[in-house]
Amino acid sequence: MNKVSFLALGGINEIGKNMYVIEYGDDILVIDCGGKFPDESLLGIDLIIPDVTYLEENQDRIRALIVTHGHEDHIGGIPFFLKKINVPIYATRFTLGLIELKLEEHRLTRDTELVTITSDSILEFGEIGVSFFKVSHSIPDCLGIVIHTPEGNVVHTGDFKFDLTPANGQYCDIHKMAEIGRQGVIALISESTNAERKGVSPSESMVAEHLVEAFRKAEGKIILSTFASNVNRVQQVVEAAMKTNRKLSLLGRSMVNVVDVALERGYLNVPDGMLISAHEIEQFPPDKVVILCTGSQGEPNAALARLSTGNYRDATIYPGDTVILAASPIPGNEKGVSRIIDNLFQLGAKVIYGSGSSTGMHVSGHGYQEDLKLMLTLMKPTYFIPIHGEYRMLHHHRQLAESVGVEKGNTFIIKNGDVVDIEDSVARQTRSIPAGDTYVDGISVGDVGEIVLRDRKQLAEDGMLVIVLTISKGDRKIIQGPDTITRGFVYVKESENLIREINRLVKKTILELEADNIRQWNVMKQNIKKSVGQYLFRQTKRKPMILPIILEI
Amino acid sequence: MNKVSFLALGGINEIGKNMYVIEYGDDILVIDCGGKFPDESLLGIDLIIPDVTYLEENQDRIRALIVTHGHEDHIGGIPFFLKKINVPIYATRFTLGLIELKLEEHRLTRDTELVTITSDSILEFGEIGVSFFKVSHSIPDCLGIVIHTPEGNVVHTGDFKFDLTPANGQYCDIHKMAEIGRQGVIALISESTNAERKGVSPSESMVAEHLVEAFRKAEGKIILSTFASNVNRVQQVVEAAMKTNRKLSLLGRSMVNVVDVALERGYLNVPDGMLISAHEIEQFPPDKVVILCTGSQGEPNAALARLSTGNYRDATIYPGDTVILAASPIPGNEKGVSRIIDNLFQLGAKVIYGSGSSTGMHVSGHGYQEDLKLMLTLMKPTYFIPIHGEYRMLHHHRQLAESVGVEKGNTFIIKNGDVVDIEDSVARQTRSIPAGDTYVDGISVGDVGEIVLRDRKQLAEDGMLVIVLTISKGDRKIIQGPDTITRGFVYVKESENLIREINRLVKKTILELEADNIRQWNVMKQNIKKSVGQYLFRQTKRKPMILPIILEI
Repeated sequence: MNKVSFLALGGINEIGKNMYVIEYGDDILVIDCGGKFPDESLLGIDLIIPDVTYLEENQDRIRALIVTHGHEDHIGGIPFFLKKINVPIYATRFTLGLIELKLEEHRLTRDTELVTITSDSILEFGEIGVSFFKVSHSIPDCLGIVIHTPEGNVVHTGDFKFDLTPANGQYCDIHKMAEIGRQGVIALISESTNAERKGVSPSESMVAEHLVEAFRKAEGKIILSTFASNVNRVQQVVEAAMKTNRKLSLLGRSMVNVVDVALERGYLNVPDGMLISAHEIEQFPPDKVVILCTGSQGEPNAALARLSTGNYRDATIYPGDTVILAASPIPGNEKGVSRIIDNLFQLGAKVIYGSGSSTGMHVSGHGYQEDLKLMLTLMKPTYFIPIHGEYRMLHHHRQLAESVGVEKGNTFIIKNGDVVDIEDSVARQTRSIPAGDTYVDGISVGDVGEIVLRDRKQLAEDGMLVIVLTISKGDRKIIQGPDTITRGFVYVKESENLIREINRLVKKTILELEADNIRQWNVMKQNIKKSVGQYLFRQTKRKPMILPIILEI
Repeated sequence: MNKVSFLALGGINEIGKNMYVIEYGDDILVIDCGGKFPDESLLGIDLIIPDVTYLEENQDRIRALIVTHGHEDHIGGIPFFLKKINVPIYATRFTLGLIELKLEEHRLTRDTELVTITSDSILEFGEIGVSFFKVSHSIPDCLGIVIHTPEGNVVHTGDFKFDLTPANGQYCDIHKMAEIGRQGVIALISESTNAERKGVSPSESMVAEHLVEAFRKAEGKIILSTFASNVNRVQQVVEAAMKTNRKLSLLGRSMVNVVDVALERGYLNVPDGMLISAHEIEQFPPDKVVILCTGSQGEPNAALARLSTGNYRDATIYPGDTVILAASPIPGNEKGVSRIIDNLFQLGAKVIYGSGSSTGMHVSGHGYQEDLKLMLTLMKPTYFIPIHGEYRMLHHHRQLAESVGVEKGNTFIIKNGDVVDIEDSVARQTRSIPAGDTYVDGISVGDVGEIVLRDRKQLAEDGMLVIVLTISKGDRKIIQGPDTITRGFVYVKESENLIREINRLVKKTILELEADNIRQWNVMKQNIKKSVGQYLFRQTKRKPMILPIILEI
């Protein structure tokens, strides 16, 4: 008898970098392929993507990559994945639009098979059937997935909330979910982002009233920053602009790109003549303009940051203009956001900011505890696997599941790499596969790892010293040097004595070794590192990288 | 006629690194000398302290350093300041206790004059008189300062809140403040940390009830983390431990040190026999022990972080133990704190956490809007200078001041380095002095600046390459090398081709220069950097530091 297996390659014990695998017999389905932006401790790394070693080893069995929605943490890794494994991609029209932007950037369009699906699609891959249901989230056209296997139906929620009054018609299909639950769900795989938050996730339409109110009050220009992908929010901004008779200008590459995709594919309606280009902004009276821009997370090169420091060519923020931050800082971004708010106040702008939904200008796209409980109640799963969250969120999600009837012991809190096998209607987590972070630095993938990062860290903290000396091949006397070059260590001018002492120490070290008749290079280098390192630590409490270069002539 | 001047060397447009100067005629008083912990962008920097160039140039006029209270952002820079300028320090008994810990560490105790003051002290420095008033804050023995000058009285609040039911008897002296206000205040200098928060700062005593409740409920050990300097909080922990019949163990160097100072100087009362040492913890039943530890800000080497990963020798967290985070993460520390919470959940601990006062286990030491308005109302200043805050907080504080009667135009929102002069009862801000950040790296001060940091940043992001070649003195032919050594760039094993191509390029560059009869070292180095740099950027989209070393034999 065969079994159905759920594998997590990313997205568990972390927010970001989602990638999941469902397999049954000879068929493998991959769900999502996200990227995660690293924190500052990963020096120089641009993106983290899942380790797909397991999939590379089993690529002949992979039937499809199914994408739940178009957020970076679900699609950011796709180009890098495709370069290793070419697989057809199944997603809704809007999601595919965003994926295509990425494929164009990486010149992968021609060789990739893209299949447009809707929530009504029914797919078959060997013995696995796949159907879908609509969920509400902070981006259009999101799907939950039902995987039909001989072992029973497995449901993957994607990212969701229950928004009964969504903007832009992005309803969730509760009736279909109820029907799925009625038919029986052996395992529910559900996202956990807001498992710590009590109550119900507020509706996106709440934002509309606050927007219109703020737009009416604003005397000068309005500058509003939100995630470009939140097209439903963008639609509400368009409508508020319409009501207050303002033109709309888009600043920031991703805002322009995403709005293009949304317009082209019919996910956004903008009245003719409302959109103006950046260089037209100054031609209209300030109270007739809304600027919609990127940078709500404090990204230093995005439009909002540049506007806040007066470094945006086409647009200037004047005293009395209103800036609305229609987003909540993602953990880790608080400082960057707060710096921008400060700069905006210094320009004399009125700034509407605050975390969460406190200003009424933002709501989360993820369900709160009551939303999560409703999903669990609708699906009535036998087994439950919370995903898309840090450990404490998964922990809280388990408590929620148990509170609505999932049996104790039937929740699997797993880690990336863990596998849950369901066989004979019994689920077990007993095995793991390789899973971890793969780093993208520049255009290369995976050539930066622990050692390189450790070196970067040392270089970053205390800089480095290169010590060059030439010794003669015959008697191994020093014939040139030692010379010491430093970078990132100390001001050279102020540390002449230090450098002189280093050179003296190196000479002494070599002479001592010579006296002991020790002439191996590696010993010479080791001893130089040790004596200079100890001296520098005593003098400066720093540990720069020391790189002795010994030439033999 | 003489004037009174207020100078800010730190503490404005930032939280952290407070240092202010008041001068009249020949006399200079310095208020506070703080340090600030850098964010990750300042690679390798341990501490930021104020630039005291102005004070060095005027050191014969400095009469005293007066310290309002013992927090790091008010005392952290003292040892470095004293090494440049020896000046007597005036502070209360508890504050001096914490300063002495620092002086001992830097071996400065013998040469520093310390003067113990109380809120009743009256000091005179030339024509300046100084008196004090008690304020409540999250550390014992805090002072506000009144500077009496022929131009009128200037009041500096220090950090404060109005806590009418403080823990540990740390009352603020409202009657004295009223009397100061009645006598007339030409300028109020007041802290702005919570100027964005509506309402009244909750009382420290609110924490007591929640502590006792949590202690009663806890079935295993209790591990509580808070700022060591919050002795009033520590006192409440002691009392809750007493009520629930638990022993108390202190983990973490600063916790042990500060509690020592507090006990010795009478700011903390602990019943005999309650304190147990770390290695006695396991000898008591878990429900008879409270561990009070450092690390509430997620510091990776502090006690809580080590406990959360099972790396603390003397104590282990078992499933069912209760961990209480009695502190709110300072902006920038959220990620570190959240990592620890996750680890604690994985150990099976019950964790009480949450931002601000949401858990009842923490209250801010800084006054909210109503506290700030009360101070402004009591002091009735003609001029107002908000300090101790980022720009938006100063901005809000100005609005508060105007709402309680400070005339529009009489508030000075200044930057570090700006000077407010009061002459003939009129205040003006027309001049500035040098002020900025001085970096402490290891034990050296000021030898790391922009260039060193820029180098560190480049090294951190993309690592480095050292290219060594030896050329002959005579005909300038390459006689050895080029050899390329990399650190922090790529895995060497995986990039043999890259290194080979670099060496080829270097050779080519040298031959081309030779053909053109160009033999200057700097030109050779420049061209190597350029050709290799361009090649690497094309291949990897990275820009490592390139360090050509050419030896002439």
